Amino acid sequence: MNFIEIFLNKEDKQPLYYQLYNYLVQGIQSGSLPAGEKLPGKRTAAGQLGVGVNTVDEAYQMLVAEGYVTARPRSGFVVNQLGQVVAPLPPTAVTEAPAPKKETIWRHSFASGGNDPTLFPRKMWNRLFREVLAEEPRLFEHGEPTGDIGLRTAIAGYLQGYRGVQCQPAQIVVGAGLEVLLGFLARLFAGSAVAVEDPGYPKAAHILANGGLQVVPVPIDEEGMNPEKLAASGATLAYLTPSHQFPTGVVMPVARRTKLLRWAASGQHVLIEDDYDSEYRFDARPLPSLQGLDGEGRVVYAGTFSRSLAPSLRIAYLVLPFWLLAQWQQMYGDYACTVSRPEQHTLARFIQGGHFYRGLNRMRNTYKKRRNLLLAALQTHLQGVEYTTQNTHTGLYFVLYLPGKNAPLIAQKAANASIKVRALNTYQRLQTTYPNTNHALVLGYGGLADEEIDDAAKALCNIIKQG
Amino acid sequence: MNFIEIFLNKEDKQPLYYQLYNYLVQGIQSGSLPAGEKLPGKRTAAGQLGVGVNTVDEAYQMLVAEGYVTARPRSGFVVNQLGQVVAPLPPTAVTEAPAPKKETIWRHSFASGGNDPTLFPRKMWNRLFREVLAEEPRLFEHGEPTGDIGLRTAIAGYLQGYRGVQCQPAQIVVGAGLEVLLGFLARLFAGSAVAVEDPGYPKAAHILANGGLQVVPVPIDEEGMNPEKLAASGATLAYLTPSHQFPTGVVMPVARRTKLLRWAASGQHVLIEDDYDSEYRFDARPLPSLQGLDGEGRVVYAGTFSRSLAPSLRIAYLVLPFWLLAQWQQMYGDYACTVSRPEQHTLARFIQGGHFYRGLNRMRNTYKKRRNLLLAALQTHLQGVEYTTQNTHTGLYFVLYLPGKNAPLIAQKAANASIKVRALNTYQRLQTTYPNTNHALVLGYGGLADEEIDDAAKALCNIIKQG
Repeated sequence: MNFIEIFLNKEDKQPLYYQLYNYLVQGIQSGSLPAGEKLPGKRTAAGQLGVGVNTVDEAYQMLVAEGYVTARPRSGFVVNQLGQVVAPLPPTAVTEAPAPKKETIWRHSFASGGNDPTLFPRKMWNRLFREVLAEEPRLFEHGEPTGDIGLRTAIAGYLQGYRGVQCQPAQIVVGAGLEVLLGFLARLFAGSAVAVEDPGYPKAAHILANGGLQVVPVPIDEEGMNPEKLAASGATLAYLTPSHQFPTGVVMPVARRTKLLRWAASGQHVLIEDDYDSEYRFDARPLPSLQGLDGEGRVVYAGTFSRSLAPSLRIAYLVLPFWLLAQWQQMYGDYACTVSRPEQHTLARFIQGGHFYRGLNRMRNTYKKRRNLLLAALQTHLQGVEYTTQNTHTGLYFVLYLPGKNAPLIAQKAANASIKVRALNTYQRLQTTYPNTNHALVLGYGGLADEEIDDAAKALCNIIKQG
Repeated sequence: MNFIEIFLNKEDKQPLYYQLYNYLVQGIQSGSLPAGEKLPGKRTAAGQLGVGVNTVDEAYQMLVAEGYVTARPRSGFVVNQLGQVVAPLPPTAVTEAPAPKKETIWRHSFASGGNDPTLFPRKMWNRLFREVLAEEPRLFEHGEPTGDIGLRTAIAGYLQGYRGVQCQPAQIVVGAGLEVLLGFLARLFAGSAVAVEDPGYPKAAHILANGGLQVVPVPIDEEGMNPEKLAASGATLAYLTPSHQFPTGVVMPVARRTKLLRWAASGQHVLIEDDYDSEYRFDARPLPSLQGLDGEGRVVYAGTFSRSLAPSLRIAYLVLPFWLLAQWQQMYGDYACTVSRPEQHTLARFIQGGHFYRGLNRMRNTYKKRRNLLLAALQTHLQGVEYTTQNTHTGLYFVLYLPGKNAPLIAQKAANASIKVRALNTYQRLQTTYPNTNHALVLGYGGLADEEIDDAAKALCNIIKQG
């Protein structure tokens, strides 16, 4: 063979040697360059192609390295017998990505997970990030698997002081969101049954199921998860939101907390306390955590900075009881922490410098104002309609109870009017459970701007009045 | 009861109402404030304590919210019957964290995973991060579950151009390290058997096992995983490092690749291609990926920026075949991407601006120099010893084969002299497999500074000569 008919394009963004390599691979795969065929010598080839010898050499070396040809002393480069090559055929399998989920653009959104990203302290974050990059020489080496000690210490300080959590930094595991951390946790108990609140947070149930746990919905009542039904469920773990039950907003009273702790202690069971939204208690200091009442080490405490900083930062944490640390270490001791070290160190400085606490106060005031605006707007626009609001003290959502009204129908009509709102019963899997879920809407206000609230409430209330 | 004997300390960092609250909780839990006991009215209490009424009110509201007391119309605040409280007893369970693994400080480290964190482009990263924070208004809202489109497009461009991967941005899933991504992947095939290379990368086997797969070691030979033994293993997935097998450095020839692809295509099996270290091919362009040869969509391609940027950034990715996207979406469609959006956008700009490619070239030259220094040092210091170096063209490690020498013993003696090096057979689980693993060391040089290499090699070679 000779290379005279091969055209290499010097204008192409692919380098010449790579063009040559591709040409020869195609020839070998198609059979036009059969096994045993000798390639021209490098100098000859270079002359025929009008390129340098180095170019040919690079292409030949790649072919050798990949096993397409063999370099034989004296006889040069010879095409190998490849067996039957799986050529890049037109694939028979699926060749298109599933259509991405279209994000609906809502006129108004009462989503319970809404928050206000404009409250994020960009300037301070940027400043601290720059400091971290300038001042920490070992930042780009491997860090500690459960998170660097500075951040774990800062988180422990916050949890001790503000959430009544009994913990040392050694008990804390930092990770890139509760999806990852609850997923890892689930693997430690693979095959076990975990009770989840019903109605409850569907995503948590989904994460725990993905991790290999058997998910058992257990009804809640007006004090949270029912302990008798939990005991009867056969579960050995329970996932709870005691500070502010999702989606009802129920705050679990201490007697109920005690009963659940006793269930866990007596059976060596585990309570997973998701302290979601606990930062946002408006009318009194936040309730201390369930973990803080636990003298037996049966609680895994879970928290996140998604709501107190930004959901797009992906920083969350678990507090593990001591006995669980060794198991965690055995499974995940060689895993790198899933939060980047520059961001870990930035957050540590952010907390230690007091910026986190000041930011929380600012956010709490902002959201409290929105809650008040929404309550006032409901009062105005629901005149003549029987309603009550429930559990308005904590978190960025509350329940609007509308006796006699069909809440799912109202939510549907609202959706038709481009207003996002969910009926309480859509979080429910079981038949008999929390009262009146068919007559209640879950109203989130974290994502509503102050000046939007009255309009949004008015539009929703008009639908309620018709519904 | 009255509150005259309660002392609230105004100098304490705990607010007064919280001190009062704590005092009353202790009384209720200890029984000194029994069920049915009436608390003093707020004004009376405030007078007795010498504090404002608001302070008492906040404490009482917390007690009510938590269920310790009930506010009864006209009779005031009455202590509830709590049942038997699980008081914070001295816990019977483990109460100390396991001692953290001590990091050994080595005089010289030939660790295969070593790299040079000082090569990280701090200034450019900082500049781009600042730009991202300043210019992207929606950065702190939720992003796309599989990673934002800008980064996925940049990664797809790199993989198409430099790794011969056939992919669209829609096939890419970005995540905080391969621990997370391979763990998620494993859950999609829970219970299946996955073949891993033997000798092979122990961490990958560990991750896949943690994810619920049954791990089956399959021997490699001098071309990589043995296809007959793979077929006999009963596995339906195989984890491979074809570009640069870990730890032997074997580059899989195209005929072998073809056979493995045929195994996967004929049985609807899945090959997981970990393209670890493929950026560091020194003597020719990097080999195209196995994925690029696959016309049947049977390859999941896995890559990371740990080695090409920094391990502490935690950014990795998978390229999924189209048919797998729908399953991924079903399991993880509601999971947030585990890499923070500020870092995703910074990396996207870093790649799109060409900095990544320039950085790779710089790193490649740095590491190539180190490899050459190490090869030269071995030549000097191993005079008179029979040895060969194997697979030195790619990656930040190679194999030093020492016929007749006891490599595990040498590694042990080296450890005693504070030199970290591993014998090839320590990565091996099966008896008969890759040749001479007892006579070979794996030498990593990515973490050795230029000026250290000769000393390190000399010290190791002296031990080899004795061993």
